[in-house]
Amino acid sequence: MPVLKYSQTQPEKVSDGIERRLVHTDSLMTAVLDLSGGPKSEPDPFHSHPHEQSCYIASGKVLFLMEGEDPVELQTGDMFYVPSGKPHAIQLLSETARLVDNFSPIREDFL
Amino acid sequence: MPVLKYSQTQPEKVSDGIERRLVHTDSLMTAVLDLSGGPKSEPDPFHSHPHEQSCYIASGKVLFLMEGEDPVELQTGDMFYVPSGKPHAIQLLSETARLVDNFSPIREDFL
Repeated sequence: MPVLKYSQTQPEKVSDGIERRLVHTDSLMTAVLDLSGGPKSEPDPFHSHPHEQSCYIASGKVLFLMEGEDPVELQTGDMFYVPSGKPHAIQLLSETARLVDNFSPIREDFL
Repeated sequence: MPVLKYSQTQPEKVSDGIERRLVHTDSLMTAVLDLSGGPKSEPDPFHSHPHEQSCYIASGKVLFLMEGEDPVELQTGDMFYVPSGKPHAIQLLSETARLVDNFSPIREDFL
């Protein structure tokens, strides 16, 4: 069955304070990121990728930064999106947060 | 700024019991669906589309049905995904639910 049950799935530990669970089809990937260890005093480094990205803030609070734009504080229910190749970053503003990150094409580097 | 703030955005009323807020890039769309009027006694009609789809259950409980698969109950934190063209449906099992639906390519019919 093409589902992922959160409580029955072991996350991948991406780094200290980041756990990831993901699903994908041919051209679409959705990754649930559980962040901990916040609040952080500064943003993570800017990064970019050819993949288009959208993100839903499922819980917590983050600062979203994108090249050429004013930083904006986002919380549960809010979304951001990133065109192909655009440098962006986040800063965790709450103790924990959950982000639902979507990519097209899929992030082969996550598999 | 490429963000959508939930509390500052008026939803589109898709139908009785379905409100939608969405963002998109060229090839990726994310739609937050707020469902109400549940629990329902039967699933919505099966439907299909060429767009690949993934979905994160942000709150509530739904039954996910896909052609050729056993129905599966999903709740907050769970995900499902749908290959291009595959018939699928959901049934709202809680009073309300929030689904984060992702599509690639974008649903031009939602714009």
